[in-house]
Amino acid sequence: MADPRFFSAPASLTLAQIVELTGATLVDQGQASIEIVGIGSLDRASGNEISFWSDAKHKESFAGTKAGACFVRPDADVSGTTTIVLTADDPQLAYARVAQAFYPDEAPEGISPKSYVSEGAELGRDCSVSEFAVIREGAQIGDEARIGANAVIGKGVTVGRRSTIGDNVTLSHCLIGDDVRIHNGARIGQDGFGYAPSLEGHIKIPQIGRVIIQNKVEIGAGTCIDRGALDDTVIGEGTKIDNLVQIGHNCRIGRHCIIVAHCGLSGSVELDDFAVLGGAVGVADHVKIGKGSQVAARSGVHRDVPDGEIHGGYPAQPIADWRREFGLLRRMVRQSRKPDKS
Amino acid sequence: MADPRFFSAPASLTLAQIVELTGATLVDQGQASIEIVGIGSLDRASGNEISFWSDAKHKESFAGTKAGACFVRPDADVSGTTTIVLTADDPQLAYARVAQAFYPDEAPEGISPKSYVSEGAELGRDCSVSEFAVIREGAQIGDEARIGANAVIGKGVTVGRRSTIGDNVTLSHCLIGDDVRIHNGARIGQDGFGYAPSLEGHIKIPQIGRVIIQNKVEIGAGTCIDRGALDDTVIGEGTKIDNLVQIGHNCRIGRHCIIVAHCGLSGSVELDDFAVLGGAVGVADHVKIGKGSQVAARSGVHRDVPDGEIHGGYPAQPIADWRREFGLLRRMVRQSRKPDKS
Amino acid sequence: MADPRFFSAPASLTLAQIVELTGATLVDQGQASIEIVGIGSLDRASGNEISFWSDAKHKESFAGTKAGACFVRPDADVSGTTTIVLTADDPQLAYARVAQAFYPDEAPEGISPKSYVSEGAELGRDCSVSEFAVIREGAQIGDEARIGANAVIGKGVTVGRRSTIGDNVTLSHCLIGDDVRIHNGARIGQDGFGYAPSLEGHIKIPQIGRVIIQNKVEIGAGTCIDRGALDDTVIGEGTKIDNLVQIGHNCRIGRHCIIVAHCGLSGSVELDDFAVLGGAVGVADHVKIGKGSQVAARSGVHRDVPDGEIHGGYPAQPIADWRREFGLLRRMVRQSRKPDKS
Repeated sequence: MADPRFFSAPASLTLAQIVELTGATLVDQGQASIEIVGIGSLDRASGNEISFWSDAKHKESFAGTKAGACFVRPDADVSGTTTIVLTADDPQLAYARVAQAFYPDEAPEGISPKSYVSEGAELGRDCSVSEFAVIREGAQIGDEARIGANAVIGKGVTVGRRSTIGDNVTLSHCLIGDDVRIHNGARIGQDGFGYAPSLEGHIKIPQIGRVIIQNKVEIGAGTCIDRGALDDTVIGEGTKIDNLVQIGHNCRIGRHCIIVAHCGLSGSVELDDFAVLGGAVGVADHVKIGKGSQVAARSGVHRDVPDGEIHGGYPAQPIADWRREFGLLRRMVRQSRKPDKS
Repeated sequence: MADPRFFSAPASLTLAQIVELTGATLVDQGQASIEIVGIGSLDRASGNEISFWSDAKHKESFAGTKAGACFVRPDADVSGTTTIVLTADDPQLAYARVAQAFYPDEAPEGISPKSYVSEGAELGRDCSVSEFAVIREGAQIGDEARIGANAVIGKGVTVGRRSTIGDNVTLSHCLIGDDVRIHNGARIGQDGFGYAPSLEGHIKIPQIGRVIIQNKVEIGAGTCIDRGALDDTVIGEGTKIDNLVQIGHNCRIGRHCIIVAHCGLSGSVELDDFAVLGGAVGVADHVKIGKGSQVAARSGVHRDVPDGEIHGGYPAQPIADWRREFGLLRRMVRQSRKPDKS
Repeated sequence: MADPRFFSAPASLTLAQIVELTGATLVDQGQASIEIVGIGSLDRASGNEISFWSDAKHKESFAGTKAGACFVRPDADVSGTTTIVLTADDPQLAYARVAQAFYPDEAPEGISPKSYVSEGAELGRDCSVSEFAVIREGAQIGDEARIGANAVIGKGVTVGRRSTIGDNVTLSHCLIGDDVRIHNGARIGQDGFGYAPSLEGHIKIPQIGRVIIQNKVEIGAGTCIDRGALDDTVIGEGTKIDNLVQIGHNCRIGRHCIIVAHCGLSGSVELDDFAVLGGAVGVADHVKIGKGSQVAARSGVHRDVPDGEIHGGYPAQPIADWRREFGLLRRMVRQSRKPDKS
């Protein structure tokens, strides 16, 4: 059960309501009026909570679960269980939807008199601005958007409807879409890293582009996204970016990409839709990562990755080749240690 | 000497007091009343400061030191020195203790009228809350705790006694123990990175766990620790975490671990007590690092590390094997470059 | 054209003025009175904007440019172009200078009544302090310096003339020179990561040094620079540091270095003047990087790099040797996969 200090107790949902929310199938229709009041893992859920089982290797956890109800795949072996079974093609997805219903975003709380909203800024209907937030001239905040405490919304920035800007965030030179979440301490829109070398040192090149964040993007705590030098840095709809990621000027990230923590994208990197970067991947400037391609954690990518391929290593290459390399090297080391038997 | 703009001049301590603080042995008891007023390196300490010598390779620095007194190992060769010698089994530890006595934490300074403390928050005795800090409803701040400027203490968060929360820190959904230090700009308790993939894009899974920070933990500037998805993310007593580290949801870090800057821990990673991760180590999800184990800087760990082992490389393996690999490869490259002589 | 929400429309400059600013040569003096009102890329600049062409591989973009004017190398083939040509030994540098003239830094805006400036702090002439910034006792802010919103300037910190401290920045225990830019959310001057191991756990060693930032340094968003343990951490004049970099205690960075995003420097690292670290490079403690040396992105440096060399890899070595290694390994993998033909 979620700690009530942090989460409001969820309103209960009947299994009938849960079926409607998720599209799952309740095996025994006679149970449709049973009420569920929260979510839990297979190992810890209680009798009035719902869980999910999708990975075959958690079969024992499912067999022993005390959850009141559980989403399972249609072909799952549920013999012997005492939990109420709901079948769903994607049990985790059904679980995510019911979890969102139990734990909706908190409602906006109005404009704190301790915030600073410039006279030249526009606030939409029903939005919230927390204590010591700063909203500068020309900024536009959409309906039902929430601006965190000590956040700074720079001159001319727009924030879309229902978007959440965390505490201690800094936004400048950017346009933020609808239903975007920007977590605590993210920095968006600052200068890119551009200099012209000279005998007097590195001469700064003014960065006059913007950052465009499309709808439904999520950006992690501490992540930095620099604005474009001349054109824009763009994050496509539905893309999810984890914490402490660096995205350089003029990057163009497609739709529904995943970028895990500590990734670093140099200038003008392109990710096509549905690309996935594991943790701490680095991508050199102007490199293109293809549609649906994946890069293994900690890889360093210096060449384009074609659509649909999985690359890994440092420098990165097709992942099967990388595995062959370190496999070969390990065999060679073993052989070099027993010269008499080889 | 420390810059007086930043550090109050320390009160002097006699060598007798220093012996009492540290358990060191003063070789010449006739010097017990001599006063020392600060700390310094072997190379730079002056005649009224104390230093320490523990590493044999700094023998020359010791020989030339102008420090008024110096902690050395009991078996150190101190012939010819003019500094007053105190012997200690661990000279650096003795030095750390006397340094803490010279430079204690600053006293709390009370509640700034420019902060915002919700009516529903509880402040302990003698704590301090700096300018523009926000303490939300239901938060509890322990006796003598210090909350920095522009910090945000979220709803229901507890901060233990004598803990220090730096400037511009964000805490939410977390319970912080006693004697904890959280440095400037750290982010603790935000959502973990959890989504269910779907045809409509990545569907967010609400994260309803917490972060538990046990006593005497230190967390570096800019470091991010996500709260658990269902269970808690836990940082064990006495663990020290450097700057810009990412710790994912549901990680369980043991007691007295060391995690150096830029490390990234995926979800549900476990570190047993006294584990040490060098800088920029990455650990894949659900991997366990054993008790007292160490991982070399910049390694990528995909498999469990047994207790007491030292691993390194990408992908990580026992460090001796990794060294053999790159040693072998270097020999092969040398040979391939002189084919006529091989 | 820059978005007018974020950038004031630049005042126009005649080509004669641009020649004077940049030292470029206008090929056709009859065009000296033509006015230019902004900058743009070869592909997107309009007829009243100026661009530059320096890289031969962009020849087609130059041939098709609609820019009103363009800096090119003196030996460039400009036959057939309709753009006005200005020749410059370094077209990018000329472009940077004219871009700075079009987009100067914004003027300071005075002291916000919503900021907090301690009575014991000193503010120079014509500086600006934004909303909810905190300037503590003994701090000194130079003439025309700008302090961002929600920034915290610690006790005794000095900020030089015309320096810009971004929003949500934290400065403590540091002296900042003139014409420095510190981007949003950077953390400078906090404790270094220093402990003495003991049976009771890791005992904190007080860090009583400072951070010294020399003139014309630029420090990226989210970057952390720890103060020295006893001596100072120093960043030399003109050095440019990107986002999310970690610099440990006692590092000494020379003049005009470049440190790209996600680099991590352990304690007491030295970079000599003009050294360049690519993205996410790690450098072990006490390692020295020579004058003008370069380290490839994502390398792990454990040994000193001599002056003027280029190193790469993990562990790092001269870059040609690293390339030979992975080249050899790739050939061996290929051979091992076709045993019959070898």
